[in-house]
Amino acid sequence: MLHRIDHVGIACHDLAAKIAFYETVFELNVVSREIHEDQGVREAMLRVADGPAGASWIQLLEPLGPDTPVGKFLARRGEGIHHIGYGVMDITAALDAIGARGVRLLDQRPRHGSMGASIAFLHPADVGGVLTELVQARADRAGPGSISR
Amino acid sequence: MLHRIDHVGIACHDLAAKIAFYETVFELNVVSREIHEDQGVREAMLRVADGPAGASWIQLLEPLGPDTPVGKFLARRGEGIHHIGYGVMDITAALDAIGARGVRLLDQRPRHGSMGASIAFLHPADVGGVLTELVQARADRAGPGSISR
Repeated sequence: MLHRIDHVGIACHDLAAKIAFYETVFELNVVSREIHEDQGVREAMLRVADGPAGASWIQLLEPLGPDTPVGKFLARRGEGIHHIGYGVMDITAALDAIGARGVRLLDQRPRHGSMGASIAFLHPADVGGVLTELVQARADRAGPGSISR
Repeated sequence: MLHRIDHVGIACHDLAAKIAFYETVFELNVVSREIHEDQGVREAMLRVADGPAGASWIQLLEPLGPDTPVGKFLARRGEGIHHIGYGVMDITAALDAIGARGVRLLDQRPRHGSMGASIAFLHPADVGGVLTELVQARADRAGPGSISR
């Protein structure tokens, strides 16, 4: 069902500063920058690795305001790891299966995520305190030959 | 420098229960179970994916007691994501480079980690609240042909 660690989401106060840190210290490169108004974040995706099932990423997240999910996370816990995203081949089938196993879905249906992916979040209280995201990359929707997320 | 997300470490109170959850809900399989007295944890490694640069894992961590790093983490924050581990080809070179860029090293030299790997932790206060581990898998030490971590 899960075929890779798609990304780890990291909450920060200052996206530009954190990008500079990851570029300088860890030699990662930003591939995409987006603003997601519906999630209340601006983000940068830094590619860590490519693999046969798609790439793995660090997702740096800066809240658009204090009353957003990431803004509240920062106020409560400070900067740090916010969530994990797993790559799946068929997000609708995965959501159905996981929901049938008793995990509450924060998103009943997939919605738009970074870089054209379809995403959905699971309730962290049902996953041992881990905010867990499923990601069906655009490449998996488009089939082989398209750009790997 | 970083060639994959090697693993995400997740702190839990009851390792057996959490293994059963990840096996049942996410269809992952435990490949290795170890006790690391020096780190104060018992752990299980569940393989998420294989890739050309090695596998990616979920590492479930149960503390051996309350006065261990993971025990204190659970008391302070509850269950959840504890750290991220990145795969590197040469951990000594990576530690030298990262230390020279101003990040304090919790381990000045690599020590033994899961599944025969060499590991070292970076100070989370210098990495934006993210406890960050470097991992040189045994396969990378032994060269091509050995079992991929």
